[in-house]
Amino acid sequence: MPEETMSEDTKIDFSNWTCPLPLQDYPTIVMGHGGGGKLSSELVEHLFLPAFRNETLAGLGDAAVIQPPAGRLALSTDTFVVQPLFFPGGTIGDLAVNGTVNDLAVSGARPLYLTAGFVLEEGFPITDLARIVQRMGASARAAGVQIVTGDTKVVERGHGDGCYINTAGVGVIPDHVNIGPSLVRPEDVILVSGTIADHGMAIMSVREGLEFDSAILSDCAPLNELAALVLEAGSQHVHAMRDPTRGGLGATLHEIAGAAKVGIVVEETQLPVRPAVHAACELLGLDPMFVANEGKLAAFVAPEAADAVLAAMRSHKLGAEAQIIGRVVAEHPRMLVAHTRIGSNRVIPEQIGEQLPRIC
Amino acid sequence: MPEETMSEDTKIDFSNWTCPLPLQDYPTIVMGHGGGGKLSSELVEHLFLPAFRNETLAGLGDAAVIQPPAGRLALSTDTFVVQPLFFPGGTIGDLAVNGTVNDLAVSGARPLYLTAGFVLEEGFPITDLARIVQRMGASARAAGVQIVTGDTKVVERGHGDGCYINTAGVGVIPDHVNIGPSLVRPEDVILVSGTIADHGMAIMSVREGLEFDSAILSDCAPLNELAALVLEAGSQHVHAMRDPTRGGLGATLHEIAGAAKVGIVVEETQLPVRPAVHAACELLGLDPMFVANEGKLAAFVAPEAADAVLAAMRSHKLGAEAQIIGRVVAEHPRMLVAHTRIGSNRVIPEQIGEQLPRIC
Repeated sequence: MPEETMSEDTKIDFSNWTCPLPLQDYPTIVMGHGGGGKLSSELVEHLFLPAFRNETLAGLGDAAVIQPPAGRLALSTDTFVVQPLFFPGGTIGDLAVNGTVNDLAVSGARPLYLTAGFVLEEGFPITDLARIVQRMGASARAAGVQIVTGDTKVVERGHGDGCYINTAGVGVIPDHVNIGPSLVRPEDVILVSGTIADHGMAIMSVREGLEFDSAILSDCAPLNELAALVLEAGSQHVHAMRDPTRGGLGATLHEIAGAAKVGIVVEETQLPVRPAVHAACELLGLDPMFVANEGKLAAFVAPEAADAVLAAMRSHKLGAEAQIIGRVVAEHPRMLVAHTRIGSNRVIPEQIGEQLPRIC
Repeated sequence: MPEETMSEDTKIDFSNWTCPLPLQDYPTIVMGHGGGGKLSSELVEHLFLPAFRNETLAGLGDAAVIQPPAGRLALSTDTFVVQPLFFPGGTIGDLAVNGTVNDLAVSGARPLYLTAGFVLEEGFPITDLARIVQRMGASARAAGVQIVTGDTKVVERGHGDGCYINTAGVGVIPDHVNIGPSLVRPEDVILVSGTIADHGMAIMSVREGLEFDSAILSDCAPLNELAALVLEAGSQHVHAMRDPTRGGLGATLHEIAGAAKVGIVVEETQLPVRPAVHAACELLGLDPMFVANEGKLAAFVAPEAADAVLAAMRSHKLGAEAQIIGRVVAEHPRMLVAHTRIGSNRVIPEQIGEQLPRIC
């Protein structure tokens, strides 16, 4: 794993904690941290509040009270069970924030508030939790959202893999925005904001102990700015946006084809894939179309707005490698067809299960 | 476990599922159910949608789009890891819905929308999941909320204890409602809506295999109607409400004493405790003050409104056994003192960890 992710040392001053005494030198999670008593409060006070700092959270009520701008609300939730918790390019904490931010953003919403629910394993090092929580705080600030309420449960040693995180998010959809999978129609152009399969292969390279000339980093990133640029550039011509996570771009395209009852044609030569990712996929027999991303946006746009949206994507650092990768057709509804590198067509079937478990 | 909870048989027609073939007769969760592919969709289509039925969820976007009434929003989250998943008087599904409904209700909000995030263990029987999910749907309808979006992850066999559920909730706080722990002040009267420690002892009686003359049932219930009645009867005299869950009434009173910098005096003889629960607590050496409830409301009310609020509580079936159990004092700030049955005073210290792990 790259140095910057794994060796970074989180300094915590434990001198004013009531940690169980034998654990003072290397404090770990105990069952009581999930009990709603003093140990729970301490975790909140010393660890969550400083990392997530905002006034709403500091109120510490049973619920956070917020005053959102008027408009339709978007509501989303995701639980993260990725293994390992720390991987090249990110942590489960970055994923947990960006994952929900992105689900809101591709719905056309401006992400505003997140909730955070932790399931911790007894014995989990508190310094690891602190690193994760600090990454959540930093990711939230980068995406312009506040983590306003939370909950922590602890399960016995041997359960729960250290740390699971659920985030739910609230965003506001501006009145003029009206997008959704069922609005996609034939002739729409399909754009992807950059290289695919980076996140999935970053995780797999760690799990399989693969070494490549250049490290494969997760693309985990918040898409709210990029989504806003796409909506601004394409306005009513933007019919749908998606962030292709687990299941990859392939699952997303199948979903859209099903929801809109359209066919989809993908130009395989136009799919942006990093050489190292391509090599890793070949080695493991995986199709990058079905490998997870955590910071890529797919947009379905009427042809007259395609160039403007492409330019808007490329104007943002997260969209510098954006490509038009295919189009929507009236033929073969619900079916995904690829124009291959060798000029033939192949049907890309829907995946039954998943290629890579525990990827997010 | 009582018949009505455990022997109820959930009938599911698996004939139109694409379940892995060897599992057709006794289908269980496989890793692919968390993969975002066809198996995931199937779980949503055959299991979640019918149980939670509402139009917003049926849209199946990355986020649910809702149009709440104007006003401040309350936002809350809770993850449920209770063991066992099915217990006398309820299931983890009832808990997951009512827990978040109650956190919103005691914040003064009208609960409106929930999200649901599942972490399932590979091998978990789909019929068990169906029972849980159907209980969630029924509880949501009973509480007048909609489960509008969700997420499912699967972890390998041996992790995750079958099923963990996170719910996050959104409610709206009417403009005239202004309550919170820090608004509690000396002379406030403390009311509790009924018997304490039922939920915790229901769980413990199953875990410890205890048999009593009468079964101890969880009090798991939605408090939104009761909370609304309290607010209506007490109006601006209601200073705070809480639902004392893990950590019990004791933890709640300590929290309020800390937040409002006040002392609290509890009349031990006024604490409503069922005889069977009292006996079970004695047997296990537990103080009912620190045993979890899942359907009890504690209200902190100015003295002039105490009788009206008590009457309002008792007018509702969930508040029939409501009692005034203590008062707020200016003396001994942040300290909880009990007037005991024998006429003495004792200080009730804050619990460090918890008496009963995995209670919710």
